Amino acid sequence: MKLQINVDRLRTNLEDLGRIGRDPNDGITRPSFSRADFEARVWLKNKIQDAGLAYRLDGAGNIFGRKDGSGRTVMVGSHIDTVINAGMFDGSVGVLAGLECLRTIEESGVKISRPLELAAFTDEEGNLVGDFLGSRAFIGCLDKELLEKGRTQIGRPLKEILKGTDFTIDGILEAHTTAPDLDAYLELHIEQGPVLDTEDIPVGIVTSIAGKHYRWCSFSGTAGHAGTTPLELRRDAFLGLADFALKSTQHVATHHYGSMVTVGKVQVLPGAFSIVPGQADFSYEFRSHAKETLEALERELFSLADDIAATRGLSFASKIIDLTEPVSIPPRIMDILKIECERLGYPYLPLPSGAGHDAQILAAKADVGMIFIPSPDGVSHSPQETIRWEDLEKGANLLLHALVILAE
Amino acid sequence: MKLQINVDRLRTNLEDLGRIGRDPNDGITRPSFSRADFEARVWLKNKIQDAGLAYRLDGAGNIFGRKDGSGRTVMVGSHIDTVINAGMFDGSVGVLAGLECLRTIEESGVKISRPLELAAFTDEEGNLVGDFLGSRAFIGCLDKELLEKGRTQIGRPLKEILKGTDFTIDGILEAHTTAPDLDAYLELHIEQGPVLDTEDIPVGIVTSIAGKHYRWCSFSGTAGHAGTTPLELRRDAFLGLADFALKSTQHVATHHYGSMVTVGKVQVLPGAFSIVPGQADFSYEFRSHAKETLEALERELFSLADDIAATRGLSFASKIIDLTEPVSIPPRIMDILKIECERLGYPYLPLPSGAGHDAQILAAKADVGMIFIPSPDGVSHSPQETIRWEDLEKGANLLLHALVILAE
Repeated sequence: MKLQINVDRLRTNLEDLGRIGRDPNDGITRPSFSRADFEARVWLKNKIQDAGLAYRLDGAGNIFGRKDGSGRTVMVGSHIDTVINAGMFDGSVGVLAGLECLRTIEESGVKISRPLELAAFTDEEGNLVGDFLGSRAFIGCLDKELLEKGRTQIGRPLKEILKGTDFTIDGILEAHTTAPDLDAYLELHIEQGPVLDTEDIPVGIVTSIAGKHYRWCSFSGTAGHAGTTPLELRRDAFLGLADFALKSTQHVATHHYGSMVTVGKVQVLPGAFSIVPGQADFSYEFRSHAKETLEALERELFSLADDIAATRGLSFASKIIDLTEPVSIPPRIMDILKIECERLGYPYLPLPSGAGHDAQILAAKADVGMIFIPSPDGVSHSPQETIRWEDLEKGANLLLHALVILAE
Repeated sequence: MKLQINVDRLRTNLEDLGRIGRDPNDGITRPSFSRADFEARVWLKNKIQDAGLAYRLDGAGNIFGRKDGSGRTVMVGSHIDTVINAGMFDGSVGVLAGLECLRTIEESGVKISRPLELAAFTDEEGNLVGDFLGSRAFIGCLDKELLEKGRTQIGRPLKEILKGTDFTIDGILEAHTTAPDLDAYLELHIEQGPVLDTEDIPVGIVTSIAGKHYRWCSFSGTAGHAGTTPLELRRDAFLGLADFALKSTQHVATHHYGSMVTVGKVQVLPGAFSIVPGQADFSYEFRSHAKETLEALERELFSLADDIAATRGLSFASKIIDLTEPVSIPPRIMDILKIECERLGYPYLPLPSGAGHDAQILAAKADVGMIFIPSPDGVSHSPQETIRWEDLEKGANLLLHALVILAE
């Protein structure tokens, strides 16, 4: 029997879901617990029930569709929330390809023994409190204080956003108590980078997911009149940041090839034409696929910041905003994905994921695996984000066959 | 006869004026054409009339107090407007020391022949449209379009700020038609830098005033996912700015010692933790005391910016916000100030002014001179700005004696 997903049905579903949360800037704005998100939740619930799966919602708003069986659960999923002004594929392809796989298995009558469960995790994008709210709630690693006091990207406190919904902070914190015992978790996702597209390869098998380290940092010096403070007497906080940004990039490129470091957000104070900056605040993140490298980066980069501060008569301070651990995909999962991909005759590339994913969080409780499909031009988090349907078909077929093996 | 200003009277005046425009942050906020400024204008008008001087107001709101005579006018002045949350000395010491000099001359009966005129110029601080609105109006070098379309620091268009006052844009543009023919202009000011205080010298005789070049600049690259865009493929606009800020500072320090370069205001776009910056906008100013150096800096620094953009795969653009010419104090004025200072027995230091002043603008129409008094710890534009009364007494006495020589 040739098992095969129906790509037209999958495409129709993606396009239907992609109409929910359309924003005035030609993109999709569907953060978790927004009005658009609740509309998408109703849509997904109907799809799950239409597919003959048992619908379940946990205290964190994670949505499940279960096909029962015996033993530990094999899960497939991703997320349906989006960043502000997003495209329609990030997250949604994983959830709807998972749904399509479960439907195909159900319709084909192929024999499987383990329970199979579809998951759509709440707020993977971190519009509320940090990234991965839903999957972190699912494995039970959230901090109550963070949920109560952490600032949401949306601007209002989480408690206020939850008001008028069926969700509560206590409910989110207890979500993990209703989680099934997991054997494996698979996630299909767009690559969000240029590698597969550049290499013209339809399927990526993720080898590892980078861990990341987010800090909010600050160099402080002394503000001064830009006309009367001689260059050699300045304690210019912005030059400290400039020096640090260049030297850390150089350091990572030279000594930790493949790791990333980014200064993404910058605030210079007081911030006027003719005043030497007294303070430079900035976001600082670095990522690596190895725990030891991430630890080395933390030591080396912040020691570099301290050295630059000392040399320039500045002070340096930082606070941790978020941390995730790097994850290596277990050989068992890698083998299944590679063998099935070869059997299906699809060209594939093993590649690391620089972006974080729910799979990374679930790795604490299950063997996880990820399949990437190409992001044309590497574009994501943008209305210009796109995919090729023939790539999705291959990725979803690989997902289907891997699920059948895992659940058999 | 020993000619001598009355420092107690001058101090009382400074303290009285310093009570107008007190803000909640323990400073003075008295931008031109604000309610506090109009209160200060009434106060100054009364003081001018009390001193027996002829009060006059021009179309730009510049305030004058004239003691008539024959021939070209000798002017003394500064400004009474302030930055937001200022101290009470920047500008005010020059106007009130000038007033004190004219009063002393009037009371002493010392014979002078030329007209002597006190001036308080509108908006030296550039809260409205660019720096030196009043003195630029006085010499007739303002651009109508700039006044009509330029953005004010205060946020509202100039036209709206003028509404409900007796001033109009046309009136500002015509102010120069009522200006007297000037022979010389003297200005006493706080140094706004640390030199005199560090050297413990009560009086500075300004040798030159730096010209400055203000631009709003931008490096543009490509925004990208901070986890999936390899360092070597990035076109990170912020790293372009960082490189430019460091290299231009190094270039100026090495090749143009004494000139200044400052990045004071920075906006990074899109400005998020996990997005490689696609654009970095920033203010860029450089100053020099020589016209040729300023021209060389313009060539060299923007060629450096272009090189950095080319190397990093970025584009660089900039637009001019403001330019002032450097001014050398004419030998005639330098000689008078030095000789009088020596006669008075005051230690003095000839020094350049890195900050801009109304004297710089008036240099297009008159021989100008400037006297500095120390700024303890170099502090200005801050509620912590201060002076020593004994320094002010010396500075004002020097001003008095120089005015007598110039007007005799």
